[in-house]
Amino acid sequence: MAIPLILDCDPGHDDALAIMLAAADPRLNLLAITTVAGNQTLEKTTLNARRVCTIAGITGVPIAAGYDRPLVGELTVGEYIHGASGLDGPTFGEPTVPVVEEHAVELMRRLLLEHPEPVTLVPLGPLTNIAVLLRDHPEVRSQIREIVLMGGSTERGNIAPYSEFNVAVDPEAADLVLRSGLPVTMCGLNVTHQALVTPEVVARLRAIGGDLADACVDLLTFFGSGYERVFGLADPPLHDPVAVARVIDPSLVECVRVPVAVELTGTHTRGATVVDLHGKTGAPPNALVAMRLDTPRFWDLMVEAVTKLSA
Amino acid sequence: MAIPLILDCDPGHDDALAIMLAAADPRLNLLAITTVAGNQTLEKTTLNARRVCTIAGITGVPIAAGYDRPLVGELTVGEYIHGASGLDGPTFGEPTVPVVEEHAVELMRRLLLEHPEPVTLVPLGPLTNIAVLLRDHPEVRSQIREIVLMGGSTERGNIAPYSEFNVAVDPEAADLVLRSGLPVTMCGLNVTHQALVTPEVVARLRAIGGDLADACVDLLTFFGSGYERVFGLADPPLHDPVAVARVIDPSLVECVRVPVAVELTGTHTRGATVVDLHGKTGAPPNALVAMRLDTPRFWDLMVEAVTKLSA
Amino acid sequence: MAIPLILDCDPGHDDALAIMLAAADPRLNLLAITTVAGNQTLEKTTLNARRVCTIAGITGVPIAAGYDRPLVGELTVGEYIHGASGLDGPTFGEPTVPVVEEHAVELMRRLLLEHPEPVTLVPLGPLTNIAVLLRDHPEVRSQIREIVLMGGSTERGNIAPYSEFNVAVDPEAADLVLRSGLPVTMCGLNVTHQALVTPEVVARLRAIGGDLADACVDLLTFFGSGYERVFGLADPPLHDPVAVARVIDPSLVECVRVPVAVELTGTHTRGATVVDLHGKTGAPPNALVAMRLDTPRFWDLMVEAVTKLSA
Amino acid sequence: MAIPLILDCDPGHDDALAIMLAAADPRLNLLAITTVAGNQTLEKTTLNARRVCTIAGITGVPIAAGYDRPLVGELTVGEYIHGASGLDGPTFGEPTVPVVEEHAVELMRRLLLEHPEPVTLVPLGPLTNIAVLLRDHPEVRSQIREIVLMGGSTERGNIAPYSEFNVAVDPEAADLVLRSGLPVTMCGLNVTHQALVTPEVVARLRAIGGDLADACVDLLTFFGSGYERVFGLADPPLHDPVAVARVIDPSLVECVRVPVAVELTGTHTRGATVVDLHGKTGAPPNALVAMRLDTPRFWDLMVEAVTKLSA
Ligand SMILES: [Ca+2]
Ligand SMILES: [Ca+2]
Ligand SMILES: [Ca+2]
Ligand SMILES: [Ca+2]
Repeated sequence: MAIPLILDCDPGHDDALAIMLAAADPRLNLLAITTVAGNQTLEKTTLNARRVCTIAGITGVPIAAGYDRPLVGELTVGEYIHGASGLDGPTFGEPTVPVVEEHAVELMRRLLLEHPEPVTLVPLGPLTNIAVLLRDHPEVRSQIREIVLMGGSTERGNIAPYSEFNVAVDPEAADLVLRSGLPVTMCGLNVTHQALVTPEVVARLRAIGGDLADACVDLLTFFGSGYERVFGLADPPLHDPVAVARVIDPSLVECVRVPVAVELTGTHTRGATVVDLHGKTGAPPNALVAMRLDTPRFWDLMVEAVTKLSA
Repeated sequence: MAIPLILDCDPGHDDALAIMLAAADPRLNLLAITTVAGNQTLEKTTLNARRVCTIAGITGVPIAAGYDRPLVGELTVGEYIHGASGLDGPTFGEPTVPVVEEHAVELMRRLLLEHPEPVTLVPLGPLTNIAVLLRDHPEVRSQIREIVLMGGSTERGNIAPYSEFNVAVDPEAADLVLRSGLPVTMCGLNVTHQALVTPEVVARLRAIGGDLADACVDLLTFFGSGYERVFGLADPPLHDPVAVARVIDPSLVECVRVPVAVELTGTHTRGATVVDLHGKTGAPPNALVAMRLDTPRFWDLMVEAVTKLSA
Repeated sequence: MAIPLILDCDPGHDDALAIMLAAADPRLNLLAITTVAGNQTLEKTTLNARRVCTIAGITGVPIAAGYDRPLVGELTVGEYIHGASGLDGPTFGEPTVPVVEEHAVELMRRLLLEHPEPVTLVPLGPLTNIAVLLRDHPEVRSQIREIVLMGGSTERGNIAPYSEFNVAVDPEAADLVLRSGLPVTMCGLNVTHQALVTPEVVARLRAIGGDLADACVDLLTFFGSGYERVFGLADPPLHDPVAVARVIDPSLVECVRVPVAVELTGTHTRGATVVDLHGKTGAPPNALVAMRLDTPRFWDLMVEAVTKLSA
Repeated sequence: MAIPLILDCDPGHDDALAIMLAAADPRLNLLAITTVAGNQTLEKTTLNARRVCTIAGITGVPIAAGYDRPLVGELTVGEYIHGASGLDGPTFGEPTVPVVEEHAVELMRRLLLEHPEPVTLVPLGPLTNIAVLLRDHPEVRSQIREIVLMGGSTERGNIAPYSEFNVAVDPEAADLVLRSGLPVTMCGLNVTHQALVTPEVVARLRAIGGDLADACVDLLTFFGSGYERVFGLADPPLHDPVAVARVIDPSLVECVRVPVAVELTGTHTRGATVVDLHGKTGAPPNALVAMRLDTPRFWDLMVEAVTKLSA
């Protein structure tokens, strides 16, 4: 039976492909897509979720908008990588997939309580929505099977030397999720940098043919140009689908169970995920941290998903 | 003409080999060895400097003891890696090389002012002595050619997830040195982990033969067992000699000029060196940061040094 | 025409008298009472709001429960002063005044948007509800006339040497409110310690006679015993009604317009309100800070209110 | 027998009068005056110490210069109160009292070890010299009878809302002294603001007559104008002599034994002395904190001292 999951995202180029993977893979049952401010403003990330569903022919999955800023402080967006629209690259027509009226947190709460079995949450943006859900609605806890998030890093960050974007935009939310006591898996930059979009990957997607595959190629081309300009990376890392892949098949992403703390107060390190791989802090383990990706099988999954949606 | 340098260290296994390298290489003119508390208490690191000079036959280089604790707070020692003596492994006889009466800072100050040309400082332990020298004796600044230190990291730390030992023991001292405006080169864990003591390296040292080479093998064997136990590393990184190698031949250690900040206030990240490799912080560059080691040539240097001292 | 206001509180002994003052004074139009976790858990402060309205005969004012914990971190309650119930002292029967279904933030939002003129918010507990209202519903901003809060201090704190309870329980919420750009007046400990419940005040209340006055005397007696035990104060300060008095008649509470920052990161000072009375920080003014209370007229107001409710 | 003491100061108007009090009172034996950067640069505070001794006829007391900046970070001076010279107001001739060659810390160390009985240290500026003395020369600890310092506050600060100048200039030094385990008495702003230089006090000094009394009047007039301009205070508080008075006669300054922490990391509160008067933190007491001054007797002492030096 398919694994029920809710995708909470801020599309975003890599979010776009994560949505496709989650909607296409037969082992998943995508209950909803919720949006949050992050890579761009909430208005833009919500529009982008609708655009992705429209071009990928994903219908019947409710899309709900959530928080437009972090729990504390002001929003920082990822325009330097994702462009002015948050999804620069392809040309999109008017989206035909609607957004529901319900607030993302309310939709998640309702779906969690209604579903006959526990549901997996897959946060792919700042953790604001998830934090408010856990903080304000403790009754949903027993209905959460696990939380598999993209965010953080065991190594360097991206938005700052030691801070990854999703965590650094709302460190207090990430802290709340990581200390929630629920089963949390963190897929950080250390593992998503094993999902580099090489020219070979682009060629495989292009070979699928059709509008969706072309749009994917355009998305990855724009995304890659940003990574080259900002980080000097030849091939961009496709972060968000890695978390979805972990849910589809845990054997794709090898994890260790260790203590993870979010730095909330540092002058230069606010938003760092401090992952204690060698038991130096004495803290108890509170998360599974992804360490290794089976890269070839990951790309097979991704190509299959786009192929299926293109059919 | 040989480059005049002063080695400020906290022996320590890797400090021991750094002393040998600095004393043996004909391109260097080792003016003094100063000691600081770090891997062990000041008493022990000073004794260990004398032991190393004694077994290596290094005479005529003054050894002076410096600070026995960091600028702020209490001393943390590195016993978990370096053992109760700070130099566990070999058996040492009574050292025959003396320690001078002068305080390390006073000796450095005097040598700097007396020397006809600017002198290179090579700190291989917590930066307490160097910080006090710069803070209290600004008249020496023009006599410092450069500071090439072992400490920090562009990646993960060792004593804590993002904090390297030498910096974390005295973060305020490291901050002062890095913000001194003098030419500073930081050889951090990211580059010293390219100097792994493989079985092949050990075999080359053993092949030299004699008491000194045997002691080196014993040192590296004990050192390796600590890294295996604590970090699960098969081969231990030989940190300190990398900074000496950089002084001997800059082409051995490739560097980039970037901003480096020391985190002084983080809850989980105090003592992290925050190296801005991608210009995300807007801070001006203040240090050369070592990125790549020419590993084969580095080991050639090290083996030559022990060979020469064994002759 | 009466000033429309919403009281957001965490009863709490002084909250109880603030509710009475706000309900009784003819210059005010109390639109709603909302509750928040603070002096006790949300369940208890909500029950206490109902108890106070029941014994004081306050009907027709909706009571709505809000957040049960701060924006970030865990709840700290004020049991050491307010007792296990949050309102120890009198014996209460079963409350007859109900609580509405709507969440406090939703009720505030609706009332603000529906009311023909701007409304004054009077927060008397941790600022969680108000912060979420401002953060998530910017459309209400133009409908807020001003925010007059009890919290903070220009001098020492109570829950910690420099931290006052309402701010220290949810510093991030207080920070958001103080930096909201709306007109904010802060009535801190420095001014509420000018509202000491002397034996003479207690005598005036007792002289009113009847169940409500007796309950007030019991409340203040218990409250006073806590202040004597914890702070060695002979007479307890009646904090919350001071903010209500400022709304009733601004001439009762003299204010200065100055910069106020909330300390979010200090090791020993988290939750301090840093009030720059002498322009030392260079920050622009962002709040009116209450400095002086017209104590005799304040007590006259309070006694009149209880008298009126007792009639 | 007179109490042997060393005055460590940064003159400074109030330091000037503290020097006179310490030199004149027969119950004290002033062994040395050491200087530190604070109210002005070290060069200026040292010159000012010589000026004060010259005009007051204090000869035979060695003056030694100490640190010219705090342990960590850059020096902030108190020019806004003490003027460009650090001792603006009177006109001084060329000082005839010399400064010794020895560094302040070395002089203190030597005097402490040589003196037949334990010596009282009276720091009246940033605590840099004292911190280095305690950190680097633990052998002097048993020769220190007590440390009676002027600095900190139980209430508001002066250089920032919660930070007093002497502590805020070098918080790490203050932290080290307060956590030294030695007997420390802190005379903070809360008690020194009970030593206001009223017009009556000025009149008493003027009535003494002569050059020294005239200089004192000029000093206090300039000092008062600064306090009026910056803090709106009619009469300036004469901070430093309060600590000297406490040594002369402990009954003049009432103290409580409580926990005192120095805030090292706050965004808005760095350098605050967090004095736990009501046992809220659970920390053990580590200092005597001055709470009440016998103001009339304090001024009698001060007037007597100037009278005696003027004879
Ligand atoms: Ca994303
Ligand atoms: Ca070392
Ligand atoms: Ca309250
Ligand atoms: Ca002073």
